[in-house]
Amino acid sequence: MEEDFSPWFRRMLSENELVDDRYDVKGMLVYRGNGMKIIKNMVSHLERLLEEDGHEPTLFPILIPETLLEKEKDHIAGFEEQVYWVTHAGKTPLDRKLALRPTSETIMYPMFALWVRTFQDLFIKVHQTCTVYRYETKQTRPLIRSREFYWNEGHTAFAKREELLENLNKVEEIYVDLISGLCCVPVQVNRRPEWDKFPGAEYTTAFETIMPDGKTLQVATIHNLGQHFSKVFNIVYDDEEGEKHHCYQSSYGPGFGRLLAAVVAVHGDEKGMIIPPMLAPTQAVIVPVVFKDKDKQEILEYVDKIAAKLKGEGIRHIVDAGDERPGAKYYKWERLGVPLRIEAGPRDLGEGKVVLVRRDTGEKSYAKLCELDVGEILDEIQDNLRKEAGDKFGRRLYTADTLVDLDEKLGEGVVTVGWCEADECAKSLDERGTILTILDQADECIVCGKKGKQIRIAKTY
Amino acid sequence: MEEDFSPWFRRMLSENELVDDRYDVKGMLVYRGNGMKIIKNMVSHLERLLEEDGHEPTLFPILIPETLLEKEKDHIAGFEEQVYWVTHAGKTPLDRKLALRPTSETIMYPMFALWVRTFQDLFIKVHQTCTVYRYETKQTRPLIRSREFYWNEGHTAFAKREELLENLNKVEEIYVDLISGLCCVPVQVNRRPEWDKFPGAEYTTAFETIMPDGKTLQVATIHNLGQHFSKVFNIVYDDEEGEKHHCYQSSYGPGFGRLLAAVVAVHGDEKGMIIPPMLAPTQAVIVPVVFKDKDKQEILEYVDKIAAKLKGEGIRHIVDAGDERPGAKYYKWERLGVPLRIEAGPRDLGEGKVVLVRRDTGEKSYAKLCELDVGEILDEIQDNLRKEAGDKFGRRLYTADTLVDLDEKLGEGVVTVGWCEADECAKSLDERGTILTILDQADECIVCGKKGKQIRIAKTY
Repeated sequence: MEEDFSPWFRRMLSENELVDDRYDVKGMLVYRGNGMKIIKNMVSHLERLLEEDGHEPTLFPILIPETLLEKEKDHIAGFEEQVYWVTHAGKTPLDRKLALRPTSETIMYPMFALWVRTFQDLFIKVHQTCTVYRYETKQTRPLIRSREFYWNEGHTAFAKREELLENLNKVEEIYVDLISGLCCVPVQVNRRPEWDKFPGAEYTTAFETIMPDGKTLQVATIHNLGQHFSKVFNIVYDDEEGEKHHCYQSSYGPGFGRLLAAVVAVHGDEKGMIIPPMLAPTQAVIVPVVFKDKDKQEILEYVDKIAAKLKGEGIRHIVDAGDERPGAKYYKWERLGVPLRIEAGPRDLGEGKVVLVRRDTGEKSYAKLCELDVGEILDEIQDNLRKEAGDKFGRRLYTADTLVDLDEKLGEGVVTVGWCEADECAKSLDERGTILTILDQADECIVCGKKGKQIRIAKTY
Repeated sequence: MEEDFSPWFRRMLSENELVDDRYDVKGMLVYRGNGMKIIKNMVSHLERLLEEDGHEPTLFPILIPETLLEKEKDHIAGFEEQVYWVTHAGKTPLDRKLALRPTSETIMYPMFALWVRTFQDLFIKVHQTCTVYRYETKQTRPLIRSREFYWNEGHTAFAKREELLENLNKVEEIYVDLISGLCCVPVQVNRRPEWDKFPGAEYTTAFETIMPDGKTLQVATIHNLGQHFSKVFNIVYDDEEGEKHHCYQSSYGPGFGRLLAAVVAVHGDEKGMIIPPMLAPTQAVIVPVVFKDKDKQEILEYVDKIAAKLKGEGIRHIVDAGDERPGAKYYKWERLGVPLRIEAGPRDLGEGKVVLVRRDTGEKSYAKLCELDVGEILDEIQDNLRKEAGDKFGRRLYTADTLVDLDEKLGEGVVTVGWCEADECAKSLDERGTILTILDQADECIVCGKKGKQIRIAKTY
């Protein structure tokens, strides 16, 4: 699968009915039931964490008048090639064109300006789960690069810079909880180089994982916007002394499509997907194993008993009592990544036992029904998936001493090398991969040997 | 408030920070925290009911190529004046214009056609919670008539007509559960007259409540699409004998903005909103009543004990330990519609009691903390709000014998009269109100006196 990641990945998406890319608008994906159920679990986990931290749920409009989108100069420069424009309503030309949001800073911040008068109106922390639109000119790929993508975006305004910095730390924690805690996807947090930051930001922090083909995938970003937007949108508060100040702001968002791609890719194997239990729409499947018709009724009753126990413990489960052979059922549920399979046949029934098969390790074990603790097993699977993925991730972090060495390791993962910060040497690096971040650590330039800093470089999606 | 509904309603929306209509695109509303929290409870209740009934959550693209939108002739005729068109991406003109979805039949059904091959691929039942776009030429009003609206839409395909009809009944049940069960908003279910059905449907069933100004508000619709769309989108299955048939389809959706409007309007009073407990983001507020500083610590500890009890019972609650006077707090939480207030002062503490104040009746009572059952009280409030609203609704259902009588009652609610089904008499009725439905019951025409059928007529939003 690592050899041939791309066809394997496409097969996962279609065989498991996660998404369908055959809709007749390029780069616009249909999320089907099995994909959307996983995403809904991501959304509710994230929204809960954000709301516990004081973010208010909101929904802002999708359309942006050109005048608003243009206000922040760097911002419009970054997006002007990428926005879809609405120009007509019915047969009537609109008197000004309206952009489909590529992100919502320029929609939200004029409203923030209306809501903020004094320090008592601060802080503002809002979030919304919605779709945004970017006319990508690069090749689109299902879940990985779309022209419509489904995300959650958070936006803030604070009185003090320190409060903003505290917020940035907290959101980083929340995103790590979502990505690594819930989804068991390991990430590296990289502050992007100046030339690669979000248009209008002071700096951008990105979360990236490494896919089985060695390319990195950015799954979330956090932007320190400083006072760039509050100055152009006039988000001003009076302090205790009645003095006016501009707010400090941040915006951030993880993409659910990319996160789903990462879950499928990072945990999957040749049998199919493996969905971490906390994230899985179905955490356990119960399969009655019937050899003789005369046993059927009794086994089905036993299976009902198992199901009742799981229900009582709040385990999301399915009983697969269909007519297929057990083997065909095992195959299907393994492909779909259900973390735990519980089998019950005539002998198990007699002994008051069940057979347990873990999707992550393939390990088969037995348990007395009265002693069965599915929650505990699911926790173990969750922890094991996180650990396994973390170990794999760790093995994909390299250093290189020569350009030949670098070339070999790029495409395997993230490589740390030195760079002198000169444009000419950057050109040589750019041909090979993408500079993810510049670290503080001193190092010799891998191209020219002069003094410089450590950087992380990788091939990226 | 019934006298002066419109300004009262606008005041509710802004004072309670439910929504803000000052964004610089006409008819596009900002949903703020307090509004969105209520809507999120509606969404999760509805999605749970739909998914328990076998609907799969999905997310389809927002953009529709003109060729797809045009396929069903009645459908495009119904929407062509109302769609927003995307014509450019960046500075590049698109080679074909793309509509922002006014509804998703023409997006989903080409995909259904790909998914359905044989009877084994059926049924399909999907839903999505999303925004849709209609360039309304009528006056826009916050929550009631917007150009962007937030809804859930369900779409199906079945092999047999009977399965479709069963689905329509089930969805009617689900919508009544959402609207009357959760939101305590009484509704009348009316099959729309032929000329007022959804473009492309066989018939449309609408759910409407009555607002305090006597106008009806349609909050949801269900459409029997028959084979209209499956024929043009070629959704065909092979039956057991290998014979080909077109599917039977339905689509349906409640609007969350309008449902929120109904909740605010139907239950509210001169003090503010009253949110039904099952729907309320905050079900109970605990207010410590501190007269002397020396009592403060002890009362706050007591309040923590009350809060812990509520938390244990899964009651969504807030402790308001702020510095405002208790009276100011009561005023604020009453305005926000929190169903139950729990007060605790020095005497209550001494006696191990709490003071309970119901938002719906204003009734004040006392309970021993150890015997307190907040869940039971909230259930009573929920039932009482549903009953009160139902009674009010019942009093707004009229009959009329003469046009003068009709004119008096229109604007007070829904009036049942007779109509001969002739165009001329319809004209006279149309000037007065909107015909909501034609009933089977025979009756004499209120205009000309000839034999006809009963109709329901009302002034509508």
